[in-house]
Amino acid sequence: MQFTSERSLGDAVVERAFTLGDVPGILWTPASASAPTPVILLGHPGGLDKMYPRLAARARHSAAQGFAAATIELPGSGDRPRSAVAEEARADLRRALAAGEPVTDDIVDRLVLPLVDRAVPEWRTLVDALLALPEIDGPVGYSGGVISIGTRLAVAEPRIAAAVLFAGSFVPRAVYEEARDVTIPLHVLLQWDDKGNDRQAALDLFDAFGSKEKTLNANMGGHTGVPQHAGDAAAAFFDRHLKPGGASWRGPVE
Amino acid sequence: MQFTSERSLGDAVVERAFTLGDVPGILWTPASASAPTPVILLGHPGGLDKMYPRLAARARHSAAQGFAAATIELPGSGDRPRSAVAEEARADLRRALAAGEPVTDDIVDRLVLPLVDRAVPEWRTLVDALLALPEIDGPVGYSGGVISIGTRLAVAEPRIAAAVLFAGSFVPRAVYEEARDVTIPLHVLLQWDDKGNDRQAALDLFDAFGSKEKTLNANMGGHTGVPQHAGDAAAAFFDRHLKPGGASWRGPVE
Repeated sequence: MQFTSERSLGDAVVERAFTLGDVPGILWTPASASAPTPVILLGHPGGLDKMYPRLAARARHSAAQGFAAATIELPGSGDRPRSAVAEEARADLRRALAAGEPVTDDIVDRLVLPLVDRAVPEWRTLVDALLALPEIDGPVGYSGGVISIGTRLAVAEPRIAAAVLFAGSFVPRAVYEEARDVTIPLHVLLQWDDKGNDRQAALDLFDAFGSKEKTLNANMGGHTGVPQHAGDAAAAFFDRHLKPGGASWRGPVE
Repeated sequence: MQFTSERSLGDAVVERAFTLGDVPGILWTPASASAPTPVILLGHPGGLDKMYPRLAARARHSAAQGFAAATIELPGSGDRPRSAVAEEARADLRRALAAGEPVTDDIVDRLVLPLVDRAVPEWRTLVDALLALPEIDGPVGYSGGVISIGTRLAVAEPRIAAAVLFAGSFVPRAVYEEARDVTIPLHVLLQWDDKGNDRQAALDLFDAFGSKEKTLNANMGGHTGVPQHAGDAAAAFFDRHLKPGGASWRGPVE
């Protein structure tokens, strides 16, 4: 992890850009932290520049809770090389949507599965790099979309203690099977009237998760209209699971 | 409203039993309140004596938030006269469940609709009586089941400003139509693996509610296993909507 720039967001947060190999990313740490803090991985649909305002707002909230936050660019997004398979699947998706045709499993598989296959090892490398920093101690949380990436990470990466998953993207059938192997506490956000999202698929995925503690928090307001109180509830979930002394804290990552 | 007894629950809550005509009820008020407080109506499936421990626990939480809480016995429950129609419907329900047969709309209608018809005017009379007390000022919240009673009340009683509805009971088809006329903010609790409850029916009812602000909070743990954090989220909902200065407070009841 090579830091490439640093600046302060107000008095509360230090923001550092970094590269992890050839993958760009951003780390936000609470300016006031006197001890190593847990960290939340901020998931997103790709395109750090476009997503930056919302990611920075989420990171500010995490810092106010005493958590660091970090994210990396997704494969095929931002300045990273495009994937021919994903671009073709995206074109097929646009054609299907424009024609009012159903989005086939084949399109979803080609769009999402290679992305998950490539992204998850990168996010695991991010966890390695974060936990090597003196200012980060774990436990590690994951928050956001792409829900198929969050699901795979929750199964593959034992250092992730709890996850807030945003159910707002296409989910390959294979991911429903992976969901059964998730055991960590989950807080799943669903925007009930998200026109671009398949609500029944999201409910099926919530049902499939193997976790004993899982909460579905569904609200009105469209894809980007997650209400403030839903953000507060997600923050309370991380308080319980990531904070030393939180009701469900499992201890620092070893 | 005739008070029949009074006692303290610890230092924090004053509990008073009352009768409203021939309907028994309980009022809990925060012992420390120096000004009139909002009040939450505590819904339940009937049988105050059996429900008392859980109702008193909910009332203690409401008092800790600065809210009074009140409940009355349902028609046909506790010491109140049984309804022949409801008893027959309940026997038919038991037979259907024992035989593994579907619970028909006819059974649900006979079980629930006469109960809603009789209960709702009584709860509205309770609102009249509560708001006449010097220690209660409104706004008024409703919290709990029977969800068909809560739905009808939310439409019929304009002094109810916000409701936490527990989706855990049979819902007549007619109530889905009433749900479209609900406009107050709703926080709907669903126990995802509640074996005696029809999950799809609960999701359909949530979808039907006309409210612009509605949250579905679904958790694991069976019918009576609502987790502490879900209670906390419901309390935060009432903080926003019933407390002076809360984010969505509409002002006291006139």
